[in-house]
Amino acid sequence: MRTSHFVMADTGWPGCAKSLKGVILDLCGVLYDSGEGDGVAIPGSIEAVKKLKESDLQLRFCTNETQATREKFVAKLRRLGFDISVSEVFPPAPAAIAVLKERGLRPHLLVHDGLLPEFDGVDKTNPNCVIVGDAAENFSYQNLNEAFRVLIGLEKPVLFSLGQGRYYKETDGLKLDVGVYMKALEYACDLKAEVIGKPSPTFFQSVLNDMGLQPHEVLMIGDDLLNDVGGAQHCGMKGVQVRTGKYRPIDERHPTVTADGTVDNLAQAVDMILSQRGH
Amino acid sequence: MRTSHFVMADTGWPGCAKSLKGVILDLCGVLYDSGEGDGVAIPGSIEAVKKLKESDLQLRFCTNETQATREKFVAKLRRLGFDISVSEVFPPAPAAIAVLKERGLRPHLLVHDGLLPEFDGVDKTNPNCVIVGDAAENFSYQNLNEAFRVLIGLEKPVLFSLGQGRYYKETDGLKLDVGVYMKALEYACDLKAEVIGKPSPTFFQSVLNDMGLQPHEVLMIGDDLLNDVGGAQHCGMKGVQVRTGKYRPIDERHPTVTADGTVDNLAQAVDMILSQRGH
Repeated sequence: MRTSHFVMADTGWPGCAKSLKGVILDLCGVLYDSGEGDGVAIPGSIEAVKKLKESDLQLRFCTNETQATREKFVAKLRRLGFDISVSEVFPPAPAAIAVLKERGLRPHLLVHDGLLPEFDGVDKTNPNCVIVGDAAENFSYQNLNEAFRVLIGLEKPVLFSLGQGRYYKETDGLKLDVGVYMKALEYACDLKAEVIGKPSPTFFQSVLNDMGLQPHEVLMIGDDLLNDVGGAQHCGMKGVQVRTGKYRPIDERHPTVTADGTVDNLAQAVDMILSQRGH
Repeated sequence: MRTSHFVMADTGWPGCAKSLKGVILDLCGVLYDSGEGDGVAIPGSIEAVKKLKESDLQLRFCTNETQATREKFVAKLRRLGFDISVSEVFPPAPAAIAVLKERGLRPHLLVHDGLLPEFDGVDKTNPNCVIVGDAAENFSYQNLNEAFRVLIGLEKPVLFSLGQGRYYKETDGLKLDVGVYMKALEYACDLKAEVIGKPSPTFFQSVLNDMGLQPHEVLMIGDDLLNDVGGAQHCGMKGVQVRTGKYRPIDERHPTVTADGTVDNLAQAVDMILSQRGH
């Protein structure tokens, strides 16, 4: 019985921390809350990132953010006080550009104005696919009709969705997210979109590849039970949920996804990880 | 073998015309094509409606039109030359208002400005359901967020969709229809909308009730294979498709819905019906 107990402690949370080689963090809702201007850092998270960087663990950031280029987005995080560089951050747009190159596709873009510069070097003439991101105010009837007409005019319509979120919270209320418009175009054209971003296994795998690690060596920490925790677990990683951001108490009784651990915030998660590792 | 042949002729198209007591016609794509101004009558359709009215058949019009009040819509048809009165036309909005009364519901409306007067007498304070129609330009990000916030704030969210069409054609191109935004809100709120309009059996039944006829006594003629023909057949009526409006040749090879008959246009359908009946 004692042996079994020790095995549990080694494979479960926070026991698994001993054998970890890397950590992947979600950004919005874990490091900071969005809102007016740059938003605000979540208490303790700046110090927590610093501690992880000083440890022997590899660290990457995996986000479904598509309202700004990676450069602008990282600049915002640095203004908030986080020691983060562009090469450590994995958003959907650069992954989408890699897919376009690989498959020789030219996109029609239905995205936020802030994301457009990310696609500056991409051939968009005579489009043979559509990319939909969190376009916010750009989700006009006019723009949605235009994306639809491109898709319906293609012999083999291809729709990429940068994430599949339902909604998010901003200071002035709940806002519909990209997944809602993905579903709208799927129904209009009778097709299934390819999701680029969390919880797509391909997307998580690209981060693991960059770290040079196996899934069982990596822990994902996020506020989104399905996209962060469930997505990571689906790839063979451990997934821990923080009680900040879009966390809701009913997440802890979800019928299909159970986090490997639930912690009050990133600071607590990092302290538990590092104390297990004897720091 | 001869007997079997005669039975076929009596139950199939156009043999079934002998035992008919009523006909239901779709409007757009059968009587007229929409476009700038009032649109244009489809050749022969004005005379065909006149012939049906002069026959011993009951006649009703069943439409998913939700961009104008029934009065304004019928006025347009009369300007085009059709002898049609308001009480003969069944669009989704009046049916929705009946459902609201029956269930004590107060709607938040996401509909076309032209439809708003239809809901003048309806209590819309402190809404406990959402009605989405073909809102066209009113399908802004702002308005969709607003409808979403009403739904997500309800303990038991109820969403009514006035039809579930994917798209339609106007002179300046294809336009997304109400069904696309119904699917968007369904996904955002994780619910299933109640469709009021074709192909809902309840909606067809309300027209049959008004005629005082049984389904097998009535024929539906429309240009939409799924919503007109399939919907009517699902209720026990016969369904004939015209090769006008949104008809496409591949409709005649559809995997699940087969029209009881396919005719070039309404004029041909009416001539076949009346000649079977010995007129």
